[in-house]
Amino acid sequence: MSEALTPVVKEIPPKTADLSAWYTAVCIKAQLVSYSPVRGCVVLRPYGYGLWENLQRQLDARFKATGHENAYFPLLIPESLLLKEAEHVEGFAPEVAWVTQGGSEELTERLAIRPTSEVIVGVMYAQWIESYRDLPILINQWANVLRWEKATRPFLRTMEFLWQEGHTAHASAQEAREETLRMLAVYRDFAENVAAVPVYAGEKSESERFPGAVETYSIEALMPDGKALQSATSHDLGQNFAKAYDISFTDADQQIKHAYTTSWGMSWRMLGAMIMVHGDDRGLRIPPKMAPLEAVFVPIVRTNDTRAVDVCKAEAKRLSEAGFRVRVDDRDEQPGWKYAEWDVRGVPVRIEIGPRDVDAKTAVLVRRDRAKGDPDQKRSVALDDVAAELPALLDDIQRTLYEQALAFLSGHTVRATAREEFYELCRTRAGMVDIAWCRLPACEAHVKAETSATTRNLRPLEGGETVCIACGEPARVRAYFAQSY
Amino acid sequence: MSEALTPVVKEIPPKTADLSAWYTAVCIKAQLVSYSPVRGCVVLRPYGYGLWENLQRQLDARFKATGHENAYFPLLIPESLLLKEAEHVEGFAPEVAWVTQGGSEELTERLAIRPTSEVIVGVMYAQWIESYRDLPILINQWANVLRWEKATRPFLRTMEFLWQEGHTAHASAQEAREETLRMLAVYRDFAENVAAVPVYAGEKSESERFPGAVETYSIEALMPDGKALQSATSHDLGQNFAKAYDISFTDADQQIKHAYTTSWGMSWRMLGAMIMVHGDDRGLRIPPKMAPLEAVFVPIVRTNDTRAVDVCKAEAKRLSEAGFRVRVDDRDEQPGWKYAEWDVRGVPVRIEIGPRDVDAKTAVLVRRDRAKGDPDQKRSVALDDVAAELPALLDDIQRTLYEQALAFLSGHTVRATAREEFYELCRTRAGMVDIAWCRLPACEAHVKAETSATTRNLRPLEGGETVCIACGEPARVRAYFAQSY
Repeated sequence: MSEALTPVVKEIPPKTADLSAWYTAVCIKAQLVSYSPVRGCVVLRPYGYGLWENLQRQLDARFKATGHENAYFPLLIPESLLLKEAEHVEGFAPEVAWVTQGGSEELTERLAIRPTSEVIVGVMYAQWIESYRDLPILINQWANVLRWEKATRPFLRTMEFLWQEGHTAHASAQEAREETLRMLAVYRDFAENVAAVPVYAGEKSESERFPGAVETYSIEALMPDGKALQSATSHDLGQNFAKAYDISFTDADQQIKHAYTTSWGMSWRMLGAMIMVHGDDRGLRIPPKMAPLEAVFVPIVRTNDTRAVDVCKAEAKRLSEAGFRVRVDDRDEQPGWKYAEWDVRGVPVRIEIGPRDVDAKTAVLVRRDRAKGDPDQKRSVALDDVAAELPALLDDIQRTLYEQALAFLSGHTVRATAREEFYELCRTRAGMVDIAWCRLPACEAHVKAETSATTRNLRPLEGGETVCIACGEPARVRAYFAQSY
Repeated sequence: MSEALTPVVKEIPPKTADLSAWYTAVCIKAQLVSYSPVRGCVVLRPYGYGLWENLQRQLDARFKATGHENAYFPLLIPESLLLKEAEHVEGFAPEVAWVTQGGSEELTERLAIRPTSEVIVGVMYAQWIESYRDLPILINQWANVLRWEKATRPFLRTMEFLWQEGHTAHASAQEAREETLRMLAVYRDFAENVAAVPVYAGEKSESERFPGAVETYSIEALMPDGKALQSATSHDLGQNFAKAYDISFTDADQQIKHAYTTSWGMSWRMLGAMIMVHGDDRGLRIPPKMAPLEAVFVPIVRTNDTRAVDVCKAEAKRLSEAGFRVRVDDRDEQPGWKYAEWDVRGVPVRIEIGPRDVDAKTAVLVRRDRAKGDPDQKRSVALDDVAAELPALLDDIQRTLYEQALAFLSGHTVRATAREEFYELCRTRAGMVDIAWCRLPACEAHVKAETSATTRNLRPLEGGETVCIACGEPARVRAYFAQSY
């Protein structure tokens, strides 16, 4: 066992009483992160990095399956390059950390630590692209980025964070639009089918667009406190960046044209959504597909009978070789203490083996998704059947977590049909408040000023809606409003 | 095909005539990297990143098999923390890039972009470690680091580079030493058995130690110009960092003790070694285990016969599903032009299928490791046998590249037995010059001043040596001297 497993302090505040305190306590006590002496930055500890590796592996496979390749662009961006796309620089300048000295040398031009990489990618695409034969370019980057922030909440808001950013260039507006929607669908698939977090996918309003984008799309999850969490975005950049950075190509008709570009990103914030959505008063509940450990063995030993340790080790070895992610907790501590710790850390299945199990060649499978006392929480199975039973059990836990989260999202998505009702729902943080909307910036600003709720994302009218519920002007879209992280 | 495949400019200078010009041309023309507008930084393009992914995957598996876990530490390090280990800061201060502004705010304390992470890791280990039960901690980080450099040579010397850095803490000096040597062995195994680059592994001299280390070990490869390339290092840090950052623990005997730490790293420089060692006048020759593409299909079509394209695609699909990394080059270009391009890019096997092959259900396998005209370069096989033949062919190419490199290293490792001969061999860049050595800094400094050669690494005396070949003082070790990158 290579990572320090210092005892977890007992008290995690109840999740329903104070979500924010619960969240921070769980992140720390499950050893996902540590606060660091670097302002606004956390350390991702091995157990937290295990979550990131599972996100990375499964998202990366989806990127490759849709034809993307990875690359790596420089961390530092000269200020003069950053200034070329006006909206973009205006949006990001307040958040940039600047390098002004190298060794003992004062720099003549400041270098920005990338807050995102559209700029440097755009400059390189301009070099690489000559002909329509060079298009599309479909590149993704796994990287750290930095945005100057005051507040620090693990995963949700940190100065430096890990993410992936896709950057593509296309010969037509149509293709760029298709790519933007394709990646939105990839994010939705990942969120729902891997992280077990149901989301609404749709277009952002004008005011919520990425600086420099023509259209921004997002997936939005709903947290237990009724606030939405934007969990990934996909941007159709049109020709804005292509014009600013001169990404042009000779088309088949011999005309020189500007390319159409997109960008799209998901960060470790997705892990924050997953933690908040699934956790309970005992700690994390990690969906099996994301779990660094799918099962943990806890041997129960008596003074003169430590056979369970060997049985656990032998069975763990067998499961490991079969491709399961498992560990044996053979530390010199009481079983009850270990149960509580692995509950905090959210391991989907605990496998208890005591002296009587050794005699009977059985093991007790305990599901983390079920409450204590739930008759379905524990089940004794023959030791020989553990490997065969585990996949279905893990699938069922994955499905259960998704279904519980979906029930919460559905139960907290409210259609408002009148203005006062709408404002009241927004104010009381009822969840996703769904209305027919005018799409007017003034209306959106008024709702925000009165309730602090914002549009999360938009979708077409269903038909029959005529007026905006919020202001009475003609309805143009349906919109989810919510308070948000 | 998602990456821009703009035609490669024809001329790569002969490797033997000008290694440096050949190297740069190959890196650019094989689309491994592009120079960027950011001083000292290159862009790792998808084909180059494919090499990095293969390094990462195979090295990471070795780290995990030896009990290590990954984590992620902050990019920025406050200056006050950096100052605590005196030798370390002295060694790295001239190479640090400093952040002095965040948004519109002037910082009261400068933040260093990590040149390496011993400092921030040390600070965190001090927090995490309390008892001997928390040890060992075995953590690795995959990260970007930055060292302020003037010169830029792809992979070999760039301001920002990608690497991994392992950081471990142990309860005893013995364990730390074992870890240092274990990871040296992992690097050697990776270099020789994956990158097909034979190396000498051994201890560095005092003057070549990592700043703050008690002992530094390295693997050293030999380049075609007779210069050595340090390809990875492993450091026993003793208690130096533990004392500077107060990494202490309560031992089983209830005494509070400082831990013993190690660190070890390999960067994308290893890719530079691989490129230089194996390439030839036609371009890259990538060892199959590192190759982003193991084989490329080139269909040969006639005006009225494009059947080969479909046959290639069907066969490529079959190989892909069997786990091979393959691609079909169906661009509208002449086969000869394609052959030259894939030669530049170093794909181990080219599979040619023309109309006659379609009729005969055959394919021509062409080995990249063999010279043009070599009777073993090409072989016609039944299409049905390609999948079965490919593994042995790839293994043979992997072995051949290693054996050629080993023959070069052995042939350019020279034992000097007299002072003048030794100085002359060093001066003429004869390769690794192997002598019995005194280990005295003054002797080492004199050799360097006279010949520009330095000690690469050291190993025990074989027995029988009495005096240092370089200066006549008593011999204490055997040492490889060479000029180096």
